[in-house]
Amino acid sequence: VRSDSIEVVGWDIGGVNIKAVRVIWNNGEIAEMDVAIRPFEIWRQRDKLTNVLREIGDQLGVREKVAMAATMTAELSDAFRNKREGVLFILDAMDHAFPNTPVYLLSLTGDLVPLKESRHHPISFAATNWVASALLVAHKYPDCIFVDVGSTTTDIIPIRGGRVNAKGFTDMDRLVSGELVYSGVLRTNPNTLAKAVPVDGRMCRVSAEYFTVMGDIYIILGLLKSDSYTCPTPDGRSNSLEAAQERLARLVCTDLDALNGAQVFKIARFLFEKQLQMVAEALLQVLSRQEDGLQATLVTAGAGAFVAIETGRRLGMKIIDLGQEWGEKAIKAFPSVAVADILARRIDAGRR
Amino acid sequence: VRSDSIEVVGWDIGGVNIKAVRVIWNNGEIAEMDVAIRPFEIWRQRDKLTNVLREIGDQLGVREKVAMAATMTAELSDAFRNKREGVLFILDAMDHAFPNTPVYLLSLTGDLVPLKESRHHPISFAATNWVASALLVAHKYPDCIFVDVGSTTTDIIPIRGGRVNAKGFTDMDRLVSGELVYSGVLRTNPNTLAKAVPVDGRMCRVSAEYFTVMGDIYIILGLLKSDSYTCPTPDGRSNSLEAAQERLARLVCTDLDALNGAQVFKIARFLFEKQLQMVAEALLQVLSRQEDGLQATLVTAGAGAFVAIETGRRLGMKIIDLGQEWGEKAIKAFPSVAVADILARRIDAGRR
Repeated sequence: VRSDSIEVVGWDIGGVNIKAVRVIWNNGEIAEMDVAIRPFEIWRQRDKLTNVLREIGDQLGVREKVAMAATMTAELSDAFRNKREGVLFILDAMDHAFPNTPVYLLSLTGDLVPLKESRHHPISFAATNWVASALLVAHKYPDCIFVDVGSTTTDIIPIRGGRVNAKGFTDMDRLVSGELVYSGVLRTNPNTLAKAVPVDGRMCRVSAEYFTVMGDIYIILGLLKSDSYTCPTPDGRSNSLEAAQERLARLVCTDLDALNGAQVFKIARFLFEKQLQMVAEALLQVLSRQEDGLQATLVTAGAGAFVAIETGRRLGMKIIDLGQEWGEKAIKAFPSVAVADILARRIDAGRR
Repeated sequence: VRSDSIEVVGWDIGGVNIKAVRVIWNNGEIAEMDVAIRPFEIWRQRDKLTNVLREIGDQLGVREKVAMAATMTAELSDAFRNKREGVLFILDAMDHAFPNTPVYLLSLTGDLVPLKESRHHPISFAATNWVASALLVAHKYPDCIFVDVGSTTTDIIPIRGGRVNAKGFTDMDRLVSGELVYSGVLRTNPNTLAKAVPVDGRMCRVSAEYFTVMGDIYIILGLLKSDSYTCPTPDGRSNSLEAAQERLARLVCTDLDALNGAQVFKIARFLFEKQLQMVAEALLQVLSRQEDGLQATLVTAGAGAFVAIETGRRLGMKIIDLGQEWGEKAIKAFPSVAVADILARRIDAGRR
């Protein structure tokens, strides 16, 4: 580490995955980074959070006293009765895991607040991961619409004149405005996208069970590789093509003795289309309040960037794929990278 | 037990609940019955099935040699790779639990087949519970449309001239025809019914998590009592009004600090409406191929009979509520009661 460089750690504490990055920052840019993505279903084992945070810190070789900044979404989990309880639980876990480290939380207004202080108004720190990503994108692309299609949700954030021009700040207001779409390319149950799917020229209603997820659909369509299917499978079996086909057949209450691979593929293709429609409708809603509308450049990130890219292409938009620039792993942990960058910039500004 | 009466046991082996009934049959009718409903999620603990069947038998005081008949739906569970494997597993469990008892399986064509023989064509015994119910209803009401709204699914079966006039026999064909709607009043996730719900005059998109179920909606609306909410809650908390409100608030990613009871009630009312719409559309599809159409009498059963009754009322149909005649408990375990009645009638016919 050169003497004029800055070392920081960024966290994104989600309900299903915890993402962390150790960053060496130099000359206004990230010079090196080391990313960790750890599956952790908080509603199953919330009491292990402190230990898991510590383990991830060790894995990244995080030294005491190196400053950290964090975003979160895990507070929405039903491990907690409300968001206040969830945020406070996560703050405590960070504090216990890193007692001698300066830890900052990103607020919904984009401020970095010391952990102790953030306890006084916990709700300001709920569901902040999109704020970090949007701030970094705004820094790089002052006028664009940022679309991050993740494993679970999709963020659609307008950026104007280098500022985040979001209308909603709570999850609920963001769902209303179209800026948050609770649909992603891995964990989403296809029965939230369609009430019926085509089978042999007839529409077949779908089951309301947790039988299959969109990860199966994209394995079947060849749009995701097995090692990108990072969530658990609903039946605990593998994420091979055949196992994915079995799970999707169960969506229409049947099996591979009754449906062949071509029939299953057509169901998958229909569900991909339904997810594209859902993202396109929300994107058009958000664009409808922007002056430049469909002239805006679409900047994409996330495990499901291919959904954003296809949506933008269909609408004739100009597209910038952050995956090309930042690499696949950084893009999947984008909020943690972003909050690390924000912290490093603040430290740098303080030194000048 | 009088010498001319017949004692039999009926089973309905579902993926979430096992229902059983011991019946004393006399003069062509059920004279006495003792019902057991046991929650059992087969995908969590399939290897305990044999023991659970034995325990239920003991609970009902079932004696060796008393004949049994069974229907099933548990074979659809993703505990099994396909239906064939599921049916065979369930047959084995019945055989091991009751080795010295004559056990019959109801087939999709309405025949009672000895367990040993049923192994040769397992698929004929998959998803047969609706067949049992429909045969009993056809015996009592020779011309009607039978609507059974359960905890998880809804069956809509036309009965003509005392015969079951179904178009679909496999689950998938029944979903296509509208005779099976994978929606019920307890376990169904509301995010399969609506992509957005009203909040303060705006439509809010919904989350795609397992945060709440229709049982919560009907607790909030006062249409179900706590002791009728017989499935597990998504968060493991109680099925009190307040806990149900908390779960429903999470559907729009918020909590009771941000939404009040009146706002939550309005979301619940909207979701009830969406479920009524779904059942009405399927009912109209099924009726569209019946000559008498909306002139048909609607015969209802199931934990969600109130949904069938309201649907029939809106369509101006004549309604017969089996719950009034048979009592609430028998109605919730209707396929097991029906298959017991079918077996007793066959035994009686054999004696004449």
